[in-house]
Amino acid sequence: MTQVLLEPGDEVLLPSPFWPLSRGVIATKGAVPVQVPFYTRLDEPEFDAEALLESKVTNRTVALYLNTPNNPTGRVIAEPVVDAMFRVAKRHDLWVLCDEAYEEIYVGPTAPTAVWKHPDVRDRAIVFHTLSKTYGFAGARVGFTHGPQSVMNAIRGMQTFQTYCAPRPMQFGAIQALRHGSAWVTETRAHYEVAGKKAASALGVPAPQGGTFLFADVSDLLAPDDKDCMPFLERCADRGVLLTPGHSCGEHYARWIRLCFTAVPPAQLDEALKRLAPLFRP
Amino acid sequence: MTQVLLEPGDEVLLPSPFWPLSRGVIATKGAVPVQVPFYTRLDEPEFDAEALLESKVTNRTVALYLNTPNNPTGRVIAEPVVDAMFRVAKRHDLWVLCDEAYEEIYVGPTAPTAVWKHPDVRDRAIVFHTLSKTYGFAGARVGFTHGPQSVMNAIRGMQTFQTYCAPRPMQFGAIQALRHGSAWVTETRAHYEVAGKKAASALGVPAPQGGTFLFADVSDLLAPDDKDCMPFLERCADRGVLLTPGHSCGEHYARWIRLCFTAVPPAQLDEALKRLAPLFRP
Repeated sequence: MTQVLLEPGDEVLLPSPFWPLSRGVIATKGAVPVQVPFYTRLDEPEFDAEALLESKVTNRTVALYLNTPNNPTGRVIAEPVVDAMFRVAKRHDLWVLCDEAYEEIYVGPTAPTAVWKHPDVRDRAIVFHTLSKTYGFAGARVGFTHGPQSVMNAIRGMQTFQTYCAPRPMQFGAIQALRHGSAWVTETRAHYEVAGKKAASALGVPAPQGGTFLFADVSDLLAPDDKDCMPFLERCADRGVLLTPGHSCGEHYARWIRLCFTAVPPAQLDEALKRLAPLFRP
Repeated sequence: MTQVLLEPGDEVLLPSPFWPLSRGVIATKGAVPVQVPFYTRLDEPEFDAEALLESKVTNRTVALYLNTPNNPTGRVIAEPVVDAMFRVAKRHDLWVLCDEAYEEIYVGPTAPTAVWKHPDVRDRAIVFHTLSKTYGFAGARVGFTHGPQSVMNAIRGMQTFQTYCAPRPMQFGAIQALRHGSAWVTETRAHYEVAGKKAASALGVPAPQGGTFLFADVSDLLAPDDKDCMPFLERCADRGVLLTPGHSCGEHYARWIRLCFTAVPPAQLDEALKRLAPLFRP
């Protein structure tokens, strides 16, 4: 590993659809986010993660961005697919950027194994955790990062001159959340599981495996000359429900939409789904 | 003005001594901080701010960093000197980065005129304010910025992908401080004026005109073979008082020290000065 900081022109493999800000986080460092339709294709019979990522690697590729459970699809990447991705990372000496925002928001009794714990990736994983989603603490701007020592030295150096530190009163709040929040997280996880199933059923799409979003292809609900989902989103807005346009999550998803139920009270979600259902099943 | 973001290799004129982090803030953007001994020279009879800054301008110079009242010297830059600096900025089409951290911490009955209000600089001033010093709110990580519209658009774009926003609970605290804090600021300003005078008297240096620091040349207190102030700082540390090495504030100040009394309770400052006085006046 020859460098830890992005240089202008460096490329980062960004499987899509993705967290809307991740593209800009990469681009504002002068690097190039290489969008690779991925999470929506995991169930295709011929899907080959290794061949797909391999085909996008160039001599400027420096990193692979991984987010599981994924915002916006709610997909958890299965271990054989993770293995395939890591073979590419190892072969081309790539950093693996692990976005663990939804690590605690999974469906079912057992947490998926964190990908950064995989032995093949320990020396190249740079891992980002946040309290924003797990503890409903987004406004506090608190998270934590870990990775190889050389990377942490560089990150600490940069952070000192960018944000200096996480806000101190919020650090105390974060300590309390981490120490005493586990019962709350268990309860929240159950709420999100119910919310995800209800929303998926109302919209007629598969239930998410984690996270706090649904991502749906609305091509069939668009007119032939609609170039993207915006006319459909306007119909949703007319009924008082705002959805995110799919192209925020990747250039290949202009005809998809994201529904977000992060921290939405159940009654409010029910009302929104009631209003949306006739639009999704006309 | 052809660009608003620093490019690698761009140069920023950084009059010194300076806030220890300003050098790194510039360097971590890939730009070069050009250190120009300045604030400690303002009283020299032949000091010519315009000629001095002019001599440091190259075809890569893009900005001038200005901080008045200054950390660490406590100097307020007099208006004719500001005029001279702005002539250089205008002549070479430089951005003027105005660090207003100590705008409310001045000595005497009247606030110095903010340099960014100067009509010649309104279209090139990018101004940084913070609640850290005025309201003792450093841990909250809240400040605000203003400048020409094109710059603000670029800053907003970058901020979205770097910090997203100031922590929301701290924003509510900041609103209260800005709405209701003026009596507290007046009282704080008076405390700092007393603290500055007491500290200056104990150390045998001129009283600061603002800010919450003293900056002193300790060359006479060093042994001939001391290459910097560190042996002196160790003697201070042995007495339980930590000072900042001058070279944190600029490469030309290795034999200077900074004393910081930001938010130090009066009794604690008195005790520290009592311990330091014999070292400063041996």
